[in-house]
Amino acid sequence: MELIVGDRMFSTWSLRPWLVLKKTGLEFSVTEIPLYGPSSDAKLAVHSPSRRVPVLKADGETIWDSLAIVLWIAEAAPEAPVWPRDPVARALCRSVVCEMHSGFMGMRNDLGMGPQFPMVGPSDGRRTEVTEAAAADVRRIVAMWREMRGRFGAGGPYLFGEWSVADAFFTPVATRFRRHGVDLADYGDDETAVVYAQTLLAQPDFLEWEREAKPLDHSL
Amino acid sequence: MELIVGDRMFSTWSLRPWLVLKKTGLEFSVTEIPLYGPSSDAKLAVHSPSRRVPVLKADGETIWDSLAIVLWIAEAAPEAPVWPRDPVARALCRSVVCEMHSGFMGMRNDLGMGPQFPMVGPSDGRRTEVTEAAAADVRRIVAMWREMRGRFGAGGPYLFGEWSVADAFFTPVATRFRRHGVDLADYGDDETAVVYAQTLLAQPDFLEWEREAKPLDHSL
Repeated sequence: MELIVGDRMFSTWSLRPWLVLKKTGLEFSVTEIPLYGPSSDAKLAVHSPSRRVPVLKADGETIWDSLAIVLWIAEAAPEAPVWPRDPVARALCRSVVCEMHSGFMGMRNDLGMGPQFPMVGPSDGRRTEVTEAAAADVRRIVAMWREMRGRFGAGGPYLFGEWSVADAFFTPVATRFRRHGVDLADYGDDETAVVYAQTLLAQPDFLEWEREAKPLDHSL
Repeated sequence: MELIVGDRMFSTWSLRPWLVLKKTGLEFSVTEIPLYGPSSDAKLAVHSPSRRVPVLKADGETIWDSLAIVLWIAEAAPEAPVWPRDPVARALCRSVVCEMHSGFMGMRNDLGMGPQFPMVGPSDGRRTEVTEAAAADVRRIVAMWREMRGRFGAGGPYLFGEWSVADAFFTPVATRFRRHGVDLADYGDDETAVVYAQTLLAQPDFLEWEREAKPLDHSL
């Protein structure tokens, strides 16, 4: 099984299924494609029907899209903590994950990750000016995190108590807030959201991703 | 169980879980919110945490996001034809559904549906000028439809042979092509895609949606 990802330095969609796969104990290799080189498009076209990463190669098939990969993993490793066991938590987890998958374009565009704004490494003190489109998204995320932590926080430090795919989907969001110097208190946080973001950034699997993230040669 | 939707005339995301729910035989009511009135935002805020439709109210919980609703339905009605039974078809079905859920912004923006471009009713002969962003998306959709129909078409007329959630997700796309006069032959079709689009628009459930779609009062 092979997971094809973009630059670990900043490919937010790639990180998500990688974090979920790590929780399963399944064996897999990682192939990293530099996203901003002159041959990036050609390399993506070889591996990915949608010309986007991540892609999972498993059982002779190519499965694309981060969420479709997660749904495949949930079937392949039914004992892994992909979706919460509790039906209500599971339904709400799917709501927040699917909302993240399709939305938040203001935040994604205006608090972007890329070579100049890597997901990895500590804050460098910059504070990006937050557009109104991004601010509306940050407020929505803070509200969502507060609501779910309020309802399910007794079960553990993650969004639905125990770790779930929601935490994989929001880990790159936590890196955006860190890199762009977003103070969540400005967006309705009572410290619930900032503590949760710190929890995500301290996950051992994420720390492993950070250690392995190196600048790639984008001249190729 | 209550499904809250936007205008049936043009709310593409609302149509998707409605089509899936119809296949389950589960009882549900529909509440329609006019999307472009002065009180639309206030009505959405009452019903939907994300302030978007569709929303499903079930078992005392509010589940939002079209795909999260579909995942809930698949659990609630395990015998319904939501995802293909064959594991490979199922994995690929999830890939195309998730790609549709998160992508195709060029097509969604530039071949939009709204009061002037309803999903329902026959072509009125207009041909919208297709931007390059939308054209790239249409080419991708035609390629995807041709590939899946080529692999799974022996099993029936739908994308993976028998009806699945992929057909629910692409029915609004077929209405875009009809309303905007998009000739799929210009985007790599060998008639596979146009025949498939016609199949979607002839589904009895979709014809029922069309019959029930009436202009709403947007002055309220």
